Amino acid sequence: MSQDFLAALSHALGNRSVITDKADHAPYLKEWRNRFTGAARAVLLPETVEQVAKIMRLCREYRVPVTPQGGNTGLVGGQIPDMSGEGVILSLNRMNKIRDISAPDKAIIAEAGVTVQTVQEAAEAVGLNFPFSIASEGSAQIGGVLSTNAGGLNAVKHGTAEGLAYGVEAVLPDGEIYRGLNMLKKNNQGFDVKRLFLGSEGGFGIITAAALKLVRAPRSRLTFMIALPRLEDSVSVLEAVEAAFVDCLEEFELIPAIGVEFVTKHKGLRPPFADLPPYMILVRVGSGFSEALLRETAEKTLIELSETGLIADAVIAQNQAQAKELRMLREYMSECQKYEGASLKHDVSVPVSRTPDLIKQAREAAEKIIPGARPVPFGHLGDGNIHLNFSVPKGGDDGVFLARESELNDAVFEIVHKLGGSFSAEHGIGRLRRETLAQYGDPTANALRIKLKETLDPNNMLNPGKTLPI
Amino acid sequence: MSQDFLAALSHALGNRSVITDKADHAPYLKEWRNRFTGAARAVLLPETVEQVAKIMRLCREYRVPVTPQGGNTGLVGGQIPDMSGEGVILSLNRMNKIRDISAPDKAIIAEAGVTVQTVQEAAEAVGLNFPFSIASEGSAQIGGVLSTNAGGLNAVKHGTAEGLAYGVEAVLPDGEIYRGLNMLKKNNQGFDVKRLFLGSEGGFGIITAAALKLVRAPRSRLTFMIALPRLEDSVSVLEAVEAAFVDCLEEFELIPAIGVEFVTKHKGLRPPFADLPPYMILVRVGSGFSEALLRETAEKTLIELSETGLIADAVIAQNQAQAKELRMLREYMSECQKYEGASLKHDVSVPVSRTPDLIKQAREAAEKIIPGARPVPFGHLGDGNIHLNFSVPKGGDDGVFLARESELNDAVFEIVHKLGGSFSAEHGIGRLRRETLAQYGDPTANALRIKLKETLDPNNMLNPGKTLPI
Repeated sequence: MSQDFLAALSHALGNRSVITDKADHAPYLKEWRNRFTGAARAVLLPETVEQVAKIMRLCREYRVPVTPQGGNTGLVGGQIPDMSGEGVILSLNRMNKIRDISAPDKAIIAEAGVTVQTVQEAAEAVGLNFPFSIASEGSAQIGGVLSTNAGGLNAVKHGTAEGLAYGVEAVLPDGEIYRGLNMLKKNNQGFDVKRLFLGSEGGFGIITAAALKLVRAPRSRLTFMIALPRLEDSVSVLEAVEAAFVDCLEEFELIPAIGVEFVTKHKGLRPPFADLPPYMILVRVGSGFSEALLRETAEKTLIELSETGLIADAVIAQNQAQAKELRMLREYMSECQKYEGASLKHDVSVPVSRTPDLIKQAREAAEKIIPGARPVPFGHLGDGNIHLNFSVPKGGDDGVFLARESELNDAVFEIVHKLGGSFSAEHGIGRLRRETLAQYGDPTANALRIKLKETLDPNNMLNPGKTLPI
Repeated sequence: MSQDFLAALSHALGNRSVITDKADHAPYLKEWRNRFTGAARAVLLPETVEQVAKIMRLCREYRVPVTPQGGNTGLVGGQIPDMSGEGVILSLNRMNKIRDISAPDKAIIAEAGVTVQTVQEAAEAVGLNFPFSIASEGSAQIGGVLSTNAGGLNAVKHGTAEGLAYGVEAVLPDGEIYRGLNMLKKNNQGFDVKRLFLGSEGGFGIITAAALKLVRAPRSRLTFMIALPRLEDSVSVLEAVEAAFVDCLEEFELIPAIGVEFVTKHKGLRPPFADLPPYMILVRVGSGFSEALLRETAEKTLIELSETGLIADAVIAQNQAQAKELRMLREYMSECQKYEGASLKHDVSVPVSRTPDLIKQAREAAEKIIPGARPVPFGHLGDGNIHLNFSVPKGGDDGVFLARESELNDAVFEIVHKLGGSFSAEHGIGRLRRETLAQYGDPTANALRIKLKETLDPNNMLNPGKTLPI
């Protein structure tokens, strides 16, 4: 039967689109953090939505589970099948065409396999911006970021990925094609079916293309770094910066001293302040007015914040090179944390005003569970979305440290829950957080998620073993 | 059985919350345009989410259909039951508490029955804005605008209502309560269940409260009116204004000369230009910088547009009173159209760049079908969302005119469809557009809508006869 199935696939797609040689499967079967691995009967590389539909019909006929995969940059294992090797990986790599772009409509239609960076560049070529940025944007694909509702740096201004799709084209588990592409800013026809595919991690259908929102590019941008002596003042600092830069705040990122130490040590970057404060905030603002106005506003605001004692110091980038240098401190933090040994990571969110409580309580809890564990909390402070990471104690044993993972998770997620937060801010559920979803997700919501899955994918063919509470 | 049912309701809610006297039903059974009427066994006025849940359980037990109703301002009859009188109206009028507001989190939690205006005022009281505005905001309620995904004036900057809900609380057809309120800017736990209740017009559940997004209020605002000699230049004018006012454009509204004639005649307002151009555009911009900067930018932009011949003239409001006067020209257009006799209305959208084509083609089609019909196309030009209205020919007979409705609709919707648009931009489906949805909605999407309804509301108890394709 397996041979019949593969022959039918080859017939439908052509041989070059059906990879059965296991030696060629490696790049699809593990991700860059090396946390999840899997096996597959074949890796499929369709080039059109009709081919994706054919695959789904064949997989239904032969009862073969399908794992959709984009740029393979997900952090919760949603894109990696299990070890059974029973299923196929449906890679969107070759659905990589930009079908249309319209500057006056501020919209682009890109196939699922187009990378975020390619969309950014296509937008820039017509004087617009695609207002979405994540560390992995060079590899991450549009289909992936939409189906996982990825977040990233610009969410503080433009929201997460789901808000950037005017419409999608998707293939359902039964092979039906939903043709929902449009360039409409308003389209109210009852329940908006595209919502089923945004954030559901490929469990209800496979996004094959999307019409994406573009925005006018700011005429000027300014980057500055704030030295924050007391974490609890971060909320007041955010309010002051927001008030000074209404609608201009593009990034508001927390960086702890230890993060700067990591990147100075491993990347040779210069620390932004001679005396490192416990926390720093990287800010980027953009506007349609002059850079001089941004600079003048920043200077005035930072002087006021300094006079009231809320901040200890600040550096305003004088040019693009300096802005880049400041931004690299943030950009390399994840990578440099690797060189410091094992780490335990949590992608959590709380209401913005509770962020200082979150970090304080999590630090204390971790110190009790793993004395000496080094907290590296960083990320999207403007959204209340903190990457609550911990590095192995200095000179400590990785294995001993990692063995405490579930204990630390329990403590962190309980704190998050009590602060009205979410155990998953932007990375999603995938394989990693299904039990946590069962524990902390609203029970009615979880029951509905399961009911929808049973309705839309009754044979549990699409991305099985992922996303749903367990 | 009916008596048992009513007795059980009275027991659960108290007598004052169960209105059975038909004389008191009138305000709930027709809407202000007098287009839809219905009948009900009782009007129910729950005060808590638990009471809503009790109602749903009793209605399930006795198989009684439920029509949820907010401020009764919907334009497609979604809030009005049919004439059978078998069902109940569940009014959210008494669920009118603001449960929480947090300025640092820029969020408010309001019950479904709170009016839009009350939320706007509560936000302003803490120095923030609720960035949503529709003509009926004094009566329209939060539950209604979310469940219909209403649009309005500010959508050009802030999107439609669905994007303003961080979370909702809702009661399902079986009486289960979904507790999804949160103040989180990022919350990625797989399929976002709140989406089921946004835009689905009360067919999948009843929204009882929502956590809404607030934004920082602009420090300055400026209103101006543009005289547009040629409709086809509106796209270039929009691009120029957007480029000059990146992120600042709050409203960009089309007004035809006939609309100004209506409001001058019936409301005694002053026309903005001595020689009325065929079209005008009302613009409002807002920013965190000074009003002087907005004014200087507007002057520069309008002079440039004037020199290139794209616009014929412009008026910049010199103060709040003048801004209000300009805005009233737009505000009273719907009302004044009434005084001009019968009208046929279409709430449609196309990609922004196709708006001139839409209006031109629709005018021509209408003239063929109903010679002398007076086109009054106006509205949200910045979103490509035009209220494509037609008034009865001067001196014409209302009945004769209205008899051509379906012929005109067919022509208009066909034009919209060919331009890649939507037959319903912001008003929704309700009772009015079910056949149109069947005709123009994506077939796969329509099948999914029906399938979801069968799954979530198998007894078809919630808002039956609405929203779905027929």
